[in-house]
Amino acid sequence: MIKKLLEISFKKCDEHSPLYRQLESQIIQLICHGILKPGQALPPSRELALSLQLNRKTVVATYEELDAQGWVETRDRSGVYVSRNLPDTSAHTIKQHSPDLTRNLQPAYAIINRSSDVVTRTDSGVQINAPEMPTPLYKIDDGFPDPRIAPIEELVREYRRFGKGRLANQFLTYGPEHGSYRLRVELANFLSKTRGLQITEKEILITKGTQMAIYLTTQLLISPGDSVFVPEPGYRDANQTFKLAGANLTFIPVDKDGIDVDRIEQLCKTQVPKMIYIIPHHHRPTTVTLSAERRMRLLRLADKYGFALLEDDYDFDYHFSSSPLLPLATLDTGGHIIYVGSFCKSIAPGVRIGFIVAPEVVINEAAAIRKLIDRQGEQLLEEATAELLKAGDISRHIKKSHKVYQERLEHTCMLLREQLGEYLTFDKPNGGLAIWATYRENISGKAVALNAGKLGLKISDGTNYFFEPDTTRPNDYIRIGYSSLNETEMAGAIDIWKQALTLFKAK
Amino acid sequence: MIKKLLEISFKKCDEHSPLYRQLESQIIQLICHGILKPGQALPPSRELALSLQLNRKTVVATYEELDAQGWVETRDRSGVYVSRNLPDTSAHTIKQHSPDLTRNLQPAYAIINRSSDVVTRTDSGVQINAPEMPTPLYKIDDGFPDPRIAPIEELVREYRRFGKGRLANQFLTYGPEHGSYRLRVELANFLSKTRGLQITEKEILITKGTQMAIYLTTQLLISPGDSVFVPEPGYRDANQTFKLAGANLTFIPVDKDGIDVDRIEQLCKTQVPKMIYIIPHHHRPTTVTLSAERRMRLLRLADKYGFALLEDDYDFDYHFSSSPLLPLATLDTGGHIIYVGSFCKSIAPGVRIGFIVAPEVVINEAAAIRKLIDRQGEQLLEEATAELLKAGDISRHIKKSHKVYQERLEHTCMLLREQLGEYLTFDKPNGGLAIWATYRENISGKAVALNAGKLGLKISDGTNYFFEPDTTRPNDYIRIGYSSLNETEMAGAIDIWKQALTLFKAK
Repeated sequence: MIKKLLEISFKKCDEHSPLYRQLESQIIQLICHGILKPGQALPPSRELALSLQLNRKTVVATYEELDAQGWVETRDRSGVYVSRNLPDTSAHTIKQHSPDLTRNLQPAYAIINRSSDVVTRTDSGVQINAPEMPTPLYKIDDGFPDPRIAPIEELVREYRRFGKGRLANQFLTYGPEHGSYRLRVELANFLSKTRGLQITEKEILITKGTQMAIYLTTQLLISPGDSVFVPEPGYRDANQTFKLAGANLTFIPVDKDGIDVDRIEQLCKTQVPKMIYIIPHHHRPTTVTLSAERRMRLLRLADKYGFALLEDDYDFDYHFSSSPLLPLATLDTGGHIIYVGSFCKSIAPGVRIGFIVAPEVVINEAAAIRKLIDRQGEQLLEEATAELLKAGDISRHIKKSHKVYQERLEHTCMLLREQLGEYLTFDKPNGGLAIWATYRENISGKAVALNAGKLGLKISDGTNYFFEPDTTRPNDYIRIGYSSLNETEMAGAIDIWKQALTLFKAK
Repeated sequence: MIKKLLEISFKKCDEHSPLYRQLESQIIQLICHGILKPGQALPPSRELALSLQLNRKTVVATYEELDAQGWVETRDRSGVYVSRNLPDTSAHTIKQHSPDLTRNLQPAYAIINRSSDVVTRTDSGVQINAPEMPTPLYKIDDGFPDPRIAPIEELVREYRRFGKGRLANQFLTYGPEHGSYRLRVELANFLSKTRGLQITEKEILITKGTQMAIYLTTQLLISPGDSVFVPEPGYRDANQTFKLAGANLTFIPVDKDGIDVDRIEQLCKTQVPKMIYIIPHHHRPTTVTLSAERRMRLLRLADKYGFALLEDDYDFDYHFSSSPLLPLATLDTGGHIIYVGSFCKSIAPGVRIGFIVAPEVVINEAAAIRKLIDRQGEQLLEEATAELLKAGDISRHIKKSHKVYQERLEHTCMLLREQLGEYLTFDKPNGGLAIWATYRENISGKAVALNAGKLGLKISDGTNYFFEPDTTRPNDYIRIGYSSLNETEMAGAIDIWKQALTLFKAK
């Protein structure tokens, strides 16, 4: 009977695993399911080998393993038996895949999942290599840099150097949760040079991109029920992060000078928020830059009301109309600001190096949580980035790519005006890697994106810009990342887009 | 007056930044601090250049920048003025570094910080390169692998390949939050082969080491006030993660067969936990393996009471007395188990690749949070690891290192018995990368660690094994990681340790 059972189950096995391990697994399963009972005899190895068409040595090895692991006991002369100290589960009814884990999922996930499409698909990436999604010919993204012009060779060269010999021993073991000491020192220099921040490495925590910086700040400052002011339209992943921590979001409008500080001032009179989230350069999605006047007023309000300012300067490097504006963090005298940024725009999104700048005590608290999240960053990558910063490779790349992107911006604006002028309007942004355009009346961004997709162009369907649904909005919008496509590619992409628009209009 | 002020502040500046940027920053600061008032005239460029000993072009460039950024306005013929639309802050009293951010820190951090030494120092790593800490001659760690024998060259080779040309464009941009598709497929094969898990890539999420897997599971399942059973002594970083989420911990004793299932059964009658955390192989810190009998009983209890089991199989690969035992996840029929593990032990701790195995719906929920934490893993590293798994490099390395570590274990046990037998006792573990030893009566682990540190050996002071302080414990313990030191190094380390013990006894 047991032989028969094993014959059946054994044949169902996969080819990945060594035979003795497969047989072992089968016998353990039979024991756990109560089919083989404590004390019951197993077939003699010779017999079982014959009936399963295995070498007898395989069966003997399996029995020895099972014995060593405590599943069976071998009695001299009389054979192999299921261990008598195991519990008898033969009368036990097994619930078939009871949904316990699912039932136990936290209510918090309802928050994310209510806006379901955001979570199940990667709204700003591609489900790379997943066979169910065909690769489009072109993709107009959310405003990502072009990794083809980034100093990746240099980065990998350094990565390689730090992964060798004596250094490997240092950088491939556990490291500090604050991030690479050298990178923090180099970054303090770099931020002081580019942004006028007067800081040392003690005020810096290395994170995995801006997203982790936002997440850690939120975990530090926000308790369930806390009020957070956020721009609308705004950055969905930040809003989700605040919601996940239980924040109540208040949406502040954004105009051509950035977030509406009048509105913030007015609201503060009755309801002071715990934190305000701002994107000072090239607001995501509308690309506007917070004006000098509003920066000053925001700082005064922070002084007056004591709220924290989370300053997400994700796109500092590519400002074209002037030098980038100094961060609010540079001008702050009240210790209200947590300043976050990354190299995801200036090197490549896949190079996940970001940072938090804040008072030392805040940095240490953030590091304590960071340790519980993933213990540490990728040390080889952090050391390699430190080296590139020190050698000036990153500054040189920013300078070089600044020129490339400015040209691509001019070219894309020209194409948009000439090719798509009858379908959309836009203002040329003063910086950043995207253009914010408004479809003319009665054009559905969703329908156009669908058409474009069929023709081989992936573009945004516009559903992720506003956090709160509002069916009365008269126009559809689209954010056009122009920097990751060269001129030929962009011309090809806009050509398809135009076809998609013509198709839409023809209907 | 303004010239004077600028002269003073300008001289204080650092040398990192270009001159015009420094001057720009200084003038903006004066405006923000209310010293320069809206509408006030700035000195003519020629005059200011003279008094600051700058080229006049530098001052002109600065004024142009300030104009473009909206801080000043240039009126034809009459000169440069502070913008009249800026707020007048001259009457505004600035709070000097008000502690708002610190005051706002969440109460949760008290939880971590009460056990303060855990947070401020890296208990299982070294504060690499931080100048205040001298590098010890030897370090007996918590049981880390030796990166010197790991396939790092192979990994960096693949890393390099994926960072080049067309592939760079794919893997250096945003990717899926579930982790590399190829790695998930290869890992499903690998786990099925080594652990008998019948899974596909859909049941796998790639994380940054086991720690992120524990963190994500906790965020998914635990709400404030939920009960979690944990082993004691146990793994502090896991306990902290549960506490951070607001869990009430119940400590379950651990004996030579692992966590005490009798105790769990008894407690379940009055208080069913939301989750039980177990380490099935080589319990951390005591190195014991959960017996076959207890595995079966735990599964039955999970079926009966519906709690979730977080199975942390961090140290599956190095089992010496038999093949590793099949995970509870392989034997589970009720869908209760979240199985987590990593390559931190089998490759190197710095190679932060871990995984969660769970039903697909749980994986998707975990991925949604993961996206908010740091968006995605390091794609180049994930692709490189997929390649190594596929080519069999990782299996070969595990086989090879298995032998090396088994020899190091034998050698270390021999040295401990011969050199330190009068100071401590231990049982040789049946696997894992550490030995759990008990100091003989009246030997203070803390004092010995301090002595050893002065002599150039870093060893644990034993304060991190138990979560709950208990001054009645008769003996001190130490966990001895033997795998990262070769035979010569270990002999050297134990020699110093012996000196430290002799010193202690002499007092």
